[in-house]
Amino acid sequence: MEKVRETARGAKQASYELGLISSKVKNKALLAMAKALEVKAGSILAGNKKDLAAAKGLSPALVDRLTLNKDRIRSMALSLRAIVSLKDPVGQVINSWIRPNGLRIQKVRVPIGVTAIIYESRPNVTSDCIGLCLKSGNACILKGGKEAINTNRAVYRVLKSAAVKNGIPAGAINFIDSTRREAALSLLSLSDYIDLVIPRGWEGLIRFVQDNSRIPVIKHYKGVCHVYVDRFADLKMAREIAFNAKVQRPGVCNAMETLLAHKDIADKFLPEMIRRFREADVEIRGCSETCKIVKGLKKAKEADWSAEYLDLILSVKVVENLDAAIEHINHYGSRHSDSIVTGNKANALKFLNMVDSACVYANASTRFSDGYEFGFGAEIGISTDKLHARGPMALEELTTYKYKIFGNGQVRK
Amino acid sequence: MEKVRETARGAKQASYELGLISSKVKNKALLAMAKALEVKAGSILAGNKKDLAAAKGLSPALVDRLTLNKDRIRSMALSLRAIVSLKDPVGQVINSWIRPNGLRIQKVRVPIGVTAIIYESRPNVTSDCIGLCLKSGNACILKGGKEAINTNRAVYRVLKSAAVKNGIPAGAINFIDSTRREAALSLLSLSDYIDLVIPRGWEGLIRFVQDNSRIPVIKHYKGVCHVYVDRFADLKMAREIAFNAKVQRPGVCNAMETLLAHKDIADKFLPEMIRRFREADVEIRGCSETCKIVKGLKKAKEADWSAEYLDLILSVKVVENLDAAIEHINHYGSRHSDSIVTGNKANALKFLNMVDSACVYANASTRFSDGYEFGFGAEIGISTDKLHARGPMALEELTTYKYKIFGNGQVRK
Repeated sequence: MEKVRETARGAKQASYELGLISSKVKNKALLAMAKALEVKAGSILAGNKKDLAAAKGLSPALVDRLTLNKDRIRSMALSLRAIVSLKDPVGQVINSWIRPNGLRIQKVRVPIGVTAIIYESRPNVTSDCIGLCLKSGNACILKGGKEAINTNRAVYRVLKSAAVKNGIPAGAINFIDSTRREAALSLLSLSDYIDLVIPRGWEGLIRFVQDNSRIPVIKHYKGVCHVYVDRFADLKMAREIAFNAKVQRPGVCNAMETLLAHKDIADKFLPEMIRRFREADVEIRGCSETCKIVKGLKKAKEADWSAEYLDLILSVKVVENLDAAIEHINHYGSRHSDSIVTGNKANALKFLNMVDSACVYANASTRFSDGYEFGFGAEIGISTDKLHARGPMALEELTTYKYKIFGNGQVRK
Repeated sequence: MEKVRETARGAKQASYELGLISSKVKNKALLAMAKALEVKAGSILAGNKKDLAAAKGLSPALVDRLTLNKDRIRSMALSLRAIVSLKDPVGQVINSWIRPNGLRIQKVRVPIGVTAIIYESRPNVTSDCIGLCLKSGNACILKGGKEAINTNRAVYRVLKSAAVKNGIPAGAINFIDSTRREAALSLLSLSDYIDLVIPRGWEGLIRFVQDNSRIPVIKHYKGVCHVYVDRFADLKMAREIAFNAKVQRPGVCNAMETLLAHKDIADKFLPEMIRRFREADVEIRGCSETCKIVKGLKKAKEADWSAEYLDLILSVKVVENLDAAIEHINHYGSRHSDSIVTGNKANALKFLNMVDSACVYANASTRFSDGYEFGFGAEIGISTDKLHARGPMALEELTTYKYKIFGNGQVRK
């Protein structure tokens, strides 16, 4: 795949130049790109039509994810405009100090370099990633799924053309125009040119990337999120939070998959909670204690405790105490997002301290784990890794740092 | 290797507890551990004697690295005491803000969890890593080289015993008492329990770790460091810096391997510089231009430009201009440490901005890339990776963060 290598080499070259381009020029380009999306919506919709024609076999949910219309294109443009208003992290002096020998050390935020994004379905990922990488000074290489190739190509062409006309080096925005697995494999081998890979999609895609990459990967495999209802919980609040965490959008990674209830409030809390879930067509899989409290439930199997259903299914467990809840979450969870509902401050703090997840909540729904909801303005993904970036990732997470050291002839004794 | 797995499982368990232990307790333990090193120096020297007896075949330099005496043990104790005086990064609130819906989000520094260090030779690495991991709240698993196994075991036993007596959970400090390669391989597979691997040693060890690890690795392969002498350089300063960067300690990663000189000053700069290097027994390998200016030099081959000699050997190249110097460094360098000597501020800034290395210097020796010299008080390694930690790594680089979110019943609309 000599072509993929050439693309990556060009991206590396362009990344040096892009890293030095001012916020003003990047913002001007982003505004032009947003406008171009709207003006050239026709060419994008034409590409989308081809993909939809080929998507006959896909599920209605997947077809919906794939479908574009003028409104959706307008909201892609809005996202690019939102990125304009975000603070540019590049060049920020994180820290600065002077050593006894007079050396002045600056720790300065810089772009990571070249970021590859390997993703599935939704075409808005194409414009979001191009926008976030551009603003954070990273050259990007996009490899989308084959089901959206015509749409993604059209979006890429519109955005790149507007960017280049506005002073962005051509090598800064790249698209692998191939649906072959070899193209992805080739990309993942190019550690000399690519600094970071972000896979976005289902678990199989992410495992494929992780298993085959010679480049550092930031990812999340699964979101097995918990709500734990403590014995000091306001049970009405607990029901609102748990219902929201499961039902508001069950197919996403920050939705709850397991509900834990303290044994002292289980009798009072669970019957009404489960009735409400069943009214919303949620299938409940209970531990033996839960099945005693509410009759007629399906019994949870061991595999349920680590399952990411992404669907209207919920496992429910009664736990002995706070410690048991924490232990359950650290054992079966995926280090994504977990919440305690409690009126007891010490218990809340213990939960927040000891649950080893990216986002830990007291008295709120796990559904807030999201770049927009955190106030980052946008999101390039969520990380359940512990290194570099954890939780929602946006502009700052697309940067690294370097040390600039200013001397006047210092040598080491 | 069931035993390695059990060790790692225990470390994970202990890490949750260790992460909550106060700075006061950790500092008290570190002071006791420093004292124990001095009081029990005898048992450590006895272990060292065994290793030295087995080291007959090794080079004098390696034997020297391996050798302990009372002074060296005292300086290991001093390093632990220095760690006591360093600020504990755990619990630091990096950022905190309130969302329009009332959610209060805190970004808080937390230990990474379990850190494995795989290293060669020098026994002080054992005590430094135990001390740094303890202070940063990380459980550690040490796997040293076979040439130092008796020394490392003795150091580990002395330190662990003192730590445990002072309130540190036993699982927080671990030592793989095996010289078998399988033990290292087994460790590298335990991604469920170990969060980070730091290899320290020669390039072969690091490649072995990187190629076999299922756990994230932070590392540096090589230090191919450059000094570029600009046409606006103070040539006397340039000679002091270049001489120091090459000769003061040639066997370390932040020593210079290639000297670049602007063509306009090469005639004036190189003859005296090279004479001085030759007096210090440095072998010079020059580009064709360098070989014209100074007669009788060995000619550099292509492989020289990316060689990490770690020895009294230096490649020298005359470059057309600043851009050519930057391009050479980004192409052949290892993203470690590079320096420009110049009196021209714009050129200095351009170099610092465009050279894609962890540490970029203006008018100082590359030899300052070091945790102590940076003022971090200690060092667990240097990273030439771009993600998570870059450059010298100490306490802060052994932490990650989590988001603690405080609500009062918020659900997502």
